[in-house]
Amino acid sequence: MSNASVEQSSTEHSVGVIEPKTIHFDQPLELVCGKTLQQYELVYETYGELNADRSNAILICHALSGDHHAAGYYSDDDSKAGWWDSCIGPGKPVDTNHFYVVSLNNLGGCGGSTGPNTINPETGKLYGPDFPIVTVKDWVESQARLANKLSIQTWAAVVGGSLGGMQALTWSLSYPERIKHAVVIASTPKLTAQNIAFNEISRKAITSDPAFHEGHYYDHNTVPVKGLMLARMIGHITYLSDVAMGEKFGRDLKTNEFNFGYGVEFEVESYLNYQGKRFSKTFDANTYLLMTRVLDYFDPAADAEGSLEKALEKSTCGYLVVSFSTDWRFSPERSEQLVSAMVKAGKPVSYAEIDSPFGHDAFLIPTERYMAIFSAYMGRIAEEVGAKKEVNPNAR
Amino acid sequence: MSNASVEQSSTEHSVGVIEPKTIHFDQPLELVCGKTLQQYELVYETYGELNADRSNAILICHALSGDHHAAGYYSDDDSKAGWWDSCIGPGKPVDTNHFYVVSLNNLGGCGGSTGPNTINPETGKLYGPDFPIVTVKDWVESQARLANKLSIQTWAAVVGGSLGGMQALTWSLSYPERIKHAVVIASTPKLTAQNIAFNEISRKAITSDPAFHEGHYYDHNTVPVKGLMLARMIGHITYLSDVAMGEKFGRDLKTNEFNFGYGVEFEVESYLNYQGKRFSKTFDANTYLLMTRVLDYFDPAADAEGSLEKALEKSTCGYLVVSFSTDWRFSPERSEQLVSAMVKAGKPVSYAEIDSPFGHDAFLIPTERYMAIFSAYMGRIAEEVGAKKEVNPNAR
Repeated sequence: MSNASVEQSSTEHSVGVIEPKTIHFDQPLELVCGKTLQQYELVYETYGELNADRSNAILICHALSGDHHAAGYYSDDDSKAGWWDSCIGPGKPVDTNHFYVVSLNNLGGCGGSTGPNTINPETGKLYGPDFPIVTVKDWVESQARLANKLSIQTWAAVVGGSLGGMQALTWSLSYPERIKHAVVIASTPKLTAQNIAFNEISRKAITSDPAFHEGHYYDHNTVPVKGLMLARMIGHITYLSDVAMGEKFGRDLKTNEFNFGYGVEFEVESYLNYQGKRFSKTFDANTYLLMTRVLDYFDPAADAEGSLEKALEKSTCGYLVVSFSTDWRFSPERSEQLVSAMVKAGKPVSYAEIDSPFGHDAFLIPTERYMAIFSAYMGRIAEEVGAKKEVNPNAR
Repeated sequence: MSNASVEQSSTEHSVGVIEPKTIHFDQPLELVCGKTLQQYELVYETYGELNADRSNAILICHALSGDHHAAGYYSDDDSKAGWWDSCIGPGKPVDTNHFYVVSLNNLGGCGGSTGPNTINPETGKLYGPDFPIVTVKDWVESQARLANKLSIQTWAAVVGGSLGGMQALTWSLSYPERIKHAVVIASTPKLTAQNIAFNEISRKAITSDPAFHEGHYYDHNTVPVKGLMLARMIGHITYLSDVAMGEKFGRDLKTNEFNFGYGVEFEVESYLNYQGKRFSKTFDANTYLLMTRVLDYFDPAADAEGSLEKALEKSTCGYLVVSFSTDWRFSPERSEQLVSAMVKAGKPVSYAEIDSPFGHDAFLIPTERYMAIFSAYMGRIAEEVGAKKEVNPNAR
């Protein structure tokens, strides 16, 4: 597959115009934190067609700031494709010619699924900061119920990057009988102290903003823009590598000379400010807090006396683990810990460290070797579920 | 030298009780930014005795949050030694048995030297945000004038870590005839985009705090505690290595179990909050902004058509460059760029990368190999300035 063929999102390689759907769940969901959601809704999208024996379904799990809109467009003149459009579509690694793809907004998200910015039916008011803290395990439980509603007994694969990879891993532990493959990209078996520290500072930035109003900013008709902006800026540093930032901005100045002040001097400042501001206008602050806590709490080994190998014992799926050389948020070393535990536990695992200058963000960028490996693995899954071997070279 | 002998600050190895001094300067200082300080004061301390030919003087330059109080105590019952007490004193690398050590608070600092939190004699009010942006070159100029007042024509060495190392390097370029050795520890020839990004976010945290009042918080009888706290927390992550944080905190919880909330759950959160809060009570926010800009602007190669080698041509001193293996703020690679340029320019340079788990903070921690190398280099300087070779082994 050539790089060019995936970097463009031409009509030919796009899932096209998509409409999100909503499913309501009446069965109460008991959460790990001890609280219960009496009812909830999940927003999701699907791409491709479910085959006759319902065996070709792929679940896509999103990361911190993602949502259900992973691929395609919302209208013919929509210029912004879904967040993983580079990897999902006809001829792409998650090939919609072969797979039925389901992508949801997780509980606690701000894309339409039940979360802090939706109405609590018990009070008639927005949940706000009272939305309970969820965990990856809770998400997997809610995703399993979504699968039930869609009459999908078994996922051909659960696929995700970063926090999404944690969900794929957890599926293989919580529902080993319902998942054939887990694709765990740019992820980690648990956060380190440094990861948690970055999250804590992001949360502190949000909660320190007077506009946060202890999470009740909706009632005050305001949004903690500055706090959320700072949180995103902090996050952004950890998504990019030192190398990538250097290549992208270096020490380039915004104007031609130093102004000797505290306004924007360097391009990198300008970029971070822009990204932070844009994000603060579209993302919910309470959801941001929640997502960082979901990350902090993730630690599947903790349920097995601290042994990841032991936690993996019950798993029956195949694994693809992918890491990126300059990812310092979840470095290759962390993926290798995961792979070592899988190997020790005797599980089938393919592992690739991809050379990439793009840091953690690399999992979103369709570079050649990454696409080749991802496509090859998914191609084998397509064969397993009975999809015909590729005959038309133009489709790949 | 054993580790134990430097880790304690016994009376035997301490410079003892110290009193800071203040010098007033009437001669206007034209700054790189184009503004002029008509008059200013510098606070400094000295340790050890100046020898007869005034050849044994060492200048210590502080980093972002440092000040003039590098060694010793302020009273007999003072439990907190100066910030580099581990390296300055009798029998320590900067051995006060041989050297006369001068340590100042730089212009713009908040330790007593003229800066944002001192009175502008032209207005009778605090400078606040109107204090001009200074640069490392301006500091070196002010330090040269301090040397004049102290009748020190030539420094036996200028020594500093991090931002302090940038001053030592700049001395060798601005006043090559007045410096015999430059000791540049855990430093860099310039900041990268990622370094600048961290600084920008720290500044944004401070300026976003409503208590900042555009730098006029003094007039409002307040302090941007939350912003300064955040800035320090961000900085702290970059001072520690992932390894050091992992070893110190891991994923240890503050209490025995998860509380599933946004309060402190992990020890690392508790630590960062504590450090941030403590710092915000003692450090001036305008100075913090200023110091980060001094770092951003530092780039001696820019004065020599972008060539560090060319910038170094005029230098005549010897260099000791030291880096630390887990320092990711200013990594060994950055010190090596400096060393390469020195070698290409034909300058005498000794370089050591020290294996250390302590990240950037390692330059403050008296580990064995670091102390051995630092002591050996300073010992040769002591011999050059006529200090007797060590006879009493207990003194080293």
